[in-house]
Amino acid sequence: MMTQTTEAQFTQIQITDPFWGQYQSLINEVVIPYQWDALNDNLPETEPSHAIENFKIAAGELKGDFYGMVFQDSDVAKWLESVAYSLSNHPDPKLEGLADQVIELIGKAQGADGYINTYFTVQEPDGRWRNLCECHELYCAGHLIEAGVAYYCATQKSRLLEIVRQFADYIDRVFGTQPGQLQGYPGHPEIELALMRLYEVTDESRYMKLAQFFIEQRGQTPHYYDEEYQRRGETSYWHTHGPAWMIHDKAYSQAHLPLDQQRQAVGHAVRFVYLLTGVAHLASRCGDQRKIALCKTLWDNMVNKQMYVTGGIGSQSEGEAFSCDYDLPNDTAYTETCASIGLIMLARRMLELETNSHYGDVMERALYNTVLAGMALDGKHFFYVNPLEVYPEAIGHNHIYDHVKAVRQRWFGCACCPPNIARLIGSLGNYMYTVKPDQILVNLYIASHATLMTHAGIFQFRMEGHYPRENQMLLHIEQAPESAMTLGLRIPDWCPDAQIDVNGKPLQVNARQHQGYALITRNWQCGDKICLRMVMTPRIIRGNPKLRHSAGQIAVQRGPIVYCIEQSDNGIHLHNIRLSAAAVFTEVAGTGLLADKVLLKTRAVRLQLPSSAADPQWLYRYDADAPQWVEQPLTLIPYFTWANRGEGEMRVWINEQLSL
Amino acid sequence: MMTQTTEAQFTQIQITDPFWGQYQSLINEVVIPYQWDALNDNLPETEPSHAIENFKIAAGELKGDFYGMVFQDSDVAKWLESVAYSLSNHPDPKLEGLADQVIELIGKAQGADGYINTYFTVQEPDGRWRNLCECHELYCAGHLIEAGVAYYCATQKSRLLEIVRQFADYIDRVFGTQPGQLQGYPGHPEIELALMRLYEVTDESRYMKLAQFFIEQRGQTPHYYDEEYQRRGETSYWHTHGPAWMIHDKAYSQAHLPLDQQRQAVGHAVRFVYLLTGVAHLASRCGDQRKIALCKTLWDNMVNKQMYVTGGIGSQSEGEAFSCDYDLPNDTAYTETCASIGLIMLARRMLELETNSHYGDVMERALYNTVLAGMALDGKHFFYVNPLEVYPEAIGHNHIYDHVKAVRQRWFGCACCPPNIARLIGSLGNYMYTVKPDQILVNLYIASHATLMTHAGIFQFRMEGHYPRENQMLLHIEQAPESAMTLGLRIPDWCPDAQIDVNGKPLQVNARQHQGYALITRNWQCGDKICLRMVMTPRIIRGNPKLRHSAGQIAVQRGPIVYCIEQSDNGIHLHNIRLSAAAVFTEVAGTGLLADKVLLKTRAVRLQLPSSAADPQWLYRYDADAPQWVEQPLTLIPYFTWANRGEGEMRVWINEQLSL
Repeated sequence: MMTQTTEAQFTQIQITDPFWGQYQSLINEVVIPYQWDALNDNLPETEPSHAIENFKIAAGELKGDFYGMVFQDSDVAKWLESVAYSLSNHPDPKLEGLADQVIELIGKAQGADGYINTYFTVQEPDGRWRNLCECHELYCAGHLIEAGVAYYCATQKSRLLEIVRQFADYIDRVFGTQPGQLQGYPGHPEIELALMRLYEVTDESRYMKLAQFFIEQRGQTPHYYDEEYQRRGETSYWHTHGPAWMIHDKAYSQAHLPLDQQRQAVGHAVRFVYLLTGVAHLASRCGDQRKIALCKTLWDNMVNKQMYVTGGIGSQSEGEAFSCDYDLPNDTAYTETCASIGLIMLARRMLELETNSHYGDVMERALYNTVLAGMALDGKHFFYVNPLEVYPEAIGHNHIYDHVKAVRQRWFGCACCPPNIARLIGSLGNYMYTVKPDQILVNLYIASHATLMTHAGIFQFRMEGHYPRENQMLLHIEQAPESAMTLGLRIPDWCPDAQIDVNGKPLQVNARQHQGYALITRNWQCGDKICLRMVMTPRIIRGNPKLRHSAGQIAVQRGPIVYCIEQSDNGIHLHNIRLSAAAVFTEVAGTGLLADKVLLKTRAVRLQLPSSAADPQWLYRYDADAPQWVEQPLTLIPYFTWANRGEGEMRVWINEQLSL
Repeated sequence: MMTQTTEAQFTQIQITDPFWGQYQSLINEVVIPYQWDALNDNLPETEPSHAIENFKIAAGELKGDFYGMVFQDSDVAKWLESVAYSLSNHPDPKLEGLADQVIELIGKAQGADGYINTYFTVQEPDGRWRNLCECHELYCAGHLIEAGVAYYCATQKSRLLEIVRQFADYIDRVFGTQPGQLQGYPGHPEIELALMRLYEVTDESRYMKLAQFFIEQRGQTPHYYDEEYQRRGETSYWHTHGPAWMIHDKAYSQAHLPLDQQRQAVGHAVRFVYLLTGVAHLASRCGDQRKIALCKTLWDNMVNKQMYVTGGIGSQSEGEAFSCDYDLPNDTAYTETCASIGLIMLARRMLELETNSHYGDVMERALYNTVLAGMALDGKHFFYVNPLEVYPEAIGHNHIYDHVKAVRQRWFGCACCPPNIARLIGSLGNYMYTVKPDQILVNLYIASHATLMTHAGIFQFRMEGHYPRENQMLLHIEQAPESAMTLGLRIPDWCPDAQIDVNGKPLQVNARQHQGYALITRNWQCGDKICLRMVMTPRIIRGNPKLRHSAGQIAVQRGPIVYCIEQSDNGIHLHNIRLSAAAVFTEVAGTGLLADKVLLKTRAVRLQLPSSAADPQWLYRYDADAPQWVEQPLTLIPYFTWANRGEGEMRVWINEQLSL
């Protein structure tokens, strides 16, 4: 029965939230049509995509050559997955008709054996499965499978699901440990998590076993990537960092070691979190204790030693990769939008493994900060890279900033992030609640109407509130099973004090004792009402003393939102501003582009220029006098709204004023 | 008459200085023999050089292929130049015999037309002068010419001078504006300054005019590099950053604009200062006011907006290049040793253009800090890159540090820096004094005996002192012309108060009114004695408020020496240490490897770890409490001595403690 799978949870939740409703409208009205134009090369000012054209050529509808990235197909798949969520939130027959046409096109481009990949079909028909390390076939397959799962759940139409099942069945015949089968695994993980989702909606255990095969083959010696490299005569698809670098740098692809020997987050950040998402999902379904422990170990290393305060991961551009523990430069950070999306996907699966608000805290941090920063408020401009500190003048001069943009771009040649944002925001319903046999965890506070299937029966409720602008959420129970049920409300890590009333009666909250969730067990009745009030005053954040890049600095967070300062509010040379941890903040409603956002105003100080000349000409000077400071009003804006008002300096970590 | 040229000044000065005497001995006893072994591939643990072998092959003495960098010849030239200075400081018939053999070998490798270049002679005989942009022929020629000039001045032997004159004469026939001549100029400037030196010792104005030609051709359109690229069929020698990047990135080679249209230091830092050294030399000899103004403009931009406090220049690895004004990251700095050597060469020529202690101050800063840091105290290990902040753990994990080493290396494949250090230290006599028609400027305080030729006659004196350990220098006049002469003593920028006695009588010093030199005009007599005492207490340095990378930090300097803190003295996590600008420093004699160096001891504070656990496991925490500090004794060592005691953290800029 379809409604039993967590994959369809988004169909059971209607988001009514002012904050996210606005974003979902933006996705429906701007992003999806804009991306459709991009996929069809109807945006003259951006790089051509050719993605739909590639499918038409592969389907025999047009003549021509493949154009674009070897993984260009995945853009179409991600668009379809976004459309699925959008149709669920906001039915649109015209859009659904368009999607159905694309699905038919994909069907026409599918080989008789089930294979789908326009690059290999059109460009290199003999090259199929010969370069798993570099060529993203299984990655694209994964995205198609995800789209098939989502479209089926959203529309109940099974055409795309059937297409991707045929493809998955074919992959299952090609790969495996039997004689004649390939013992390889994808360079870019993705199909693992997709196969687990396919397993959820089909209940076909072959898909889970295939995911397990890909996961367990990874990193075995002799290395499959070396073997296939030899077999194909040492040819290489990518030459970015010299020939065959991707084959040799095995950590980049999470192939340096078998997973159960890994202890640290290394390599390409997106690949890492995508892979672990599949592993955690598999582990939760198999109850595989070694894999569960492995997921926890790697998660802990990543979020406790290698994550930015914005929920960004991957601190370096080269290899879009993790660095080492506590190496988190703010200005050269890579912190790809997609990596934080993958982090949220992983957090969801970790919550299925373990009830611990820590996962929800990280999910919320990544979502409200890095992921939202990835898209402009207009829905048409995107960041791939999300630094925590920007000095626009140095970009374009110092090549350590080659990957950094000071303002969002319209579309990318490698367009992974924009459609990924769209599908995440469209599918928030999958992340808000974790339904366990005996409990429902509330992970995200998003006003909505939910009808969740539990073992005991239907649990239906409304959540109301204007989070994170306001600090109170109301839950109205509309239907509940007859037996007792536990409802777990996440008490966010940023919340020093939460009050819960049930039907007007205060409840003692000691979230720490329940892994950060306030667990309320009752025989719930229709008409029961829970009120959650979270103290949401701005808080000062400090980094671990080992974090040299935030030493002597503080960050500010209100609710889940990390703040930053921008040049347009506070003038140039933000490094000369100092903020006291004792500062008093006033919450102010934003205006214009920042309407509906909560800005913070406070008083800070700025270095007084050392002479009457406003522009000292010396570079260094001997000066043992204590620096002098002048007061300066300071405006902080949500980090995710930065760079919406033109180019300027920005920083999240602000130098701390220890005394005036 | 040879003694009239400034090129021979080093022969008239015997360094008796304890500090530099030690270095000159190291150069004579360790570096030159070590480099000889390197050039002859007798160092099994280092990359082969093949440089002498290349000459033997080009001379027909051996069969074989060229091996090494296309500019490998320059290592031999720089070694010969170092030997010239060494022989002048420290006669050594065996070494001189060896050098004479090398000179004969070079002569044998010279073509009948005068051409010398082992790469083209051996490897690509038809390629001569076809790739000026990339292939360093004129650069190697420049170094050979410099060696010829130096060897002639040092030994009075003219064999190498004759060889390089033949080569220069040949180049003068090949290049020029006449029909049939090439109108090109070198990708790597060097020959310009070398031709000016050759002009000085030969008085042959053709060499000066050829230098002028190369300087003025530069950056003209259509671009010579594009034209020759077309002519040779768009082939490229280097592919480091993609094909033909060096041809396209014209700023890299200082060819983006004609020099008189340039206003900012851009591109490859070594090329920039080498070129300007030739330009300034030419301008001083021609009295070309436009070129003089140009040199000042570019100098000002470089040292007032793009120089590190250590006298390093070139803040980025890619292109070994300048970035933009005020972009001086400490950890990813490139700050090549050779660039600071070039800066010193340029400062010398600027002093010939203009009496201003500012040039001497920069010369001293680069010399005592970055250049000395380029070589280990053992004379056998070298830094190419000289960062101001190092966290060894991140090197090897974060690729923004790919160019950074935490300890010095033995020898490089591209071995430009080690022989460059050797020739600079050997020729300090050329930098100590600037002899002008009516004055002698004392730029560097190095105990020595000097016999300088002035217009009025011989001026001979002894300088005594133990600078920079001690703060007093004595000048004993031994011989002076009959007419009045001005002696200018540089009052260093770091010196807040200097006292000068002449024959025991205090002299009023108001250096600022004489462009930073205390000018003393007298009819000097044998037996006159000048005593200069400079207040040399440690001083606190602050950066310009536009320098974000030193915001909130201070550096410490005593005399000309910039200090740093190292992990081996002060523990790990140097970013958690804070130093007050009011700190009191105790000068302490170093021991062991740091014997004879002045260390500074003081009290600083270190961040108190926020809980009893020494190793907090959280990455961020909400914490508005003011940080707590514990006292920590702090040891500062001269920056140039860092990384001599193993691998560890280091930083020059120390976070400032504003209040305890």
